[in-house]
Amino acid sequence: MMRQQDLQRLHDAVRDVPDFPQPGIVFKDITPILADPALFRFALDALGEIARDLRPGKIVGIDARGFIFGAALADRLACGFIPMRKKGKLPYHTRSCVYELEYGEAELEVHLDAIGAGDRILLVDDLLATGGTAGAALQLIGQAGAELAGALFLIELAFLDGRRNLHPHHTCSLLTF
Amino acid sequence: MMRQQDLQRLHDAVRDVPDFPQPGIVFKDITPILADPALFRFALDALGEIARDLRPGKIVGIDARGFIFGAALADRLACGFIPMRKKGKLPYHTRSCVYELEYGEAELEVHLDAIGAGDRILLVDDLLATGGTAGAALQLIGQAGAELAGALFLIELAFLDGRRNLHPHHTCSLLTF
Repeated sequence: MMRQQDLQRLHDAVRDVPDFPQPGIVFKDITPILADPALFRFALDALGEIARDLRPGKIVGIDARGFIFGAALADRLACGFIPMRKKGKLPYHTRSCVYELEYGEAELEVHLDAIGAGDRILLVDDLLATGGTAGAALQLIGQAGAELAGALFLIELAFLDGRRNLHPHHTCSLLTF
Repeated sequence: MMRQQDLQRLHDAVRDVPDFPQPGIVFKDITPILADPALFRFALDALGEIARDLRPGKIVGIDARGFIFGAALADRLACGFIPMRKKGKLPYHTRSCVYELEYGEAELEVHLDAIGAGDRILLVDDLLATGGTAGAALQLIGQAGAELAGALFLIELAFLDGRRNLHPHHTCSLLTF
C-alpha cells in the first residue's frame, strides 16, 4: 500500500521537459527526485531491494546519470563500482562499442581491467529508452567474459521497447511511461 | 592507526595515467578505488565523517565523477542531491557560469530551482586541481543565495593551489598529491 503511494509520488515527481535535447523529444527530468531526500531514498530503497536479489559482484553505472544511482547502490550493496563512459572520457586502456542512438551514433567505453571473466554484473542507468546504450553495455560485459546478473532502471519508456536489446536478461524498472 | 593505513591504501590505489587527456598532463585515475568494495567504502566512510560535521542540507556533485561520491554521500546523509553539469546537459531552466580551464574554457550549469536562498550546500567532486570548476560552482551557489557549508574532494593536487578559489570556505580532501 505504502509502496504503491511512494511509487506514485516518484512517478509524479518526474518532470517532462519538451523539446530537449532536440525538437520533438520530451525529456524525463529526474532532478526533482534527486533533490528530495525522501524521494531519493525511496528510489534507492526500491532499487536496492531488487538489486540485492540479483546478487551482483560489481555494479556498472552508465555516464552520467547512471553514476548517481549506480554508485549509491554499489555503496549499499558493498559492491565495486565500474563506470562506463562516452568515448574519450576514461583515461586507461579501454574496450569500446559503437551503437545507434535515436539521433546519430555513439561509442561506449569501459576500462579493460574493470570487468573480468566470471564477474557477475548489475547494470544501472536512470532511463531505458531505445536500449541502444544498454545493448552496447551488454556487449562490453560479454566481451569481458562476464555475466549480466540484470539491468536496473529508474524509468522505462515502454513504447520504445528498449528491453528487447537486453533479452533474455533480467530487466527491471521502477517507473514505466 | 588503521585510518592511516587505509588512507595509504587509498593513496596507493590511485593510478597515474600519463598524457591524458592531453600530452604533459598526468591524470589521477580513481577507478581502481571505485572497483574495490573495501576501498570505495573506506573513502565514503572518511568523506562521510567530514561531510556530516558540516551539516549540509543539500549535496552538489559535479559532472561526472563528482556524481559518484556526491550521490553516495547524499544517500548516507539523507540529503538532496543536486547535479551541476557541463553546458547543455541539464534539461530545465538553468543558471550558468563560464570559467577558465587548464586548457581552454568551460561552462557549468545548475537548474534554477535546484538551489534556493538559505540552502546549506556541500560541494563534492573527485579532484581539486586548479579549482576553476569548484570556483564556478561556488559562484552558482552564491547567485542562488545559498551558503557553501564546505567543499570535499577525494584528491587534491596541492601544487596547483586550487583551494584559493574556495577561500575562505572550508575545503577538505582525503588524499594530497
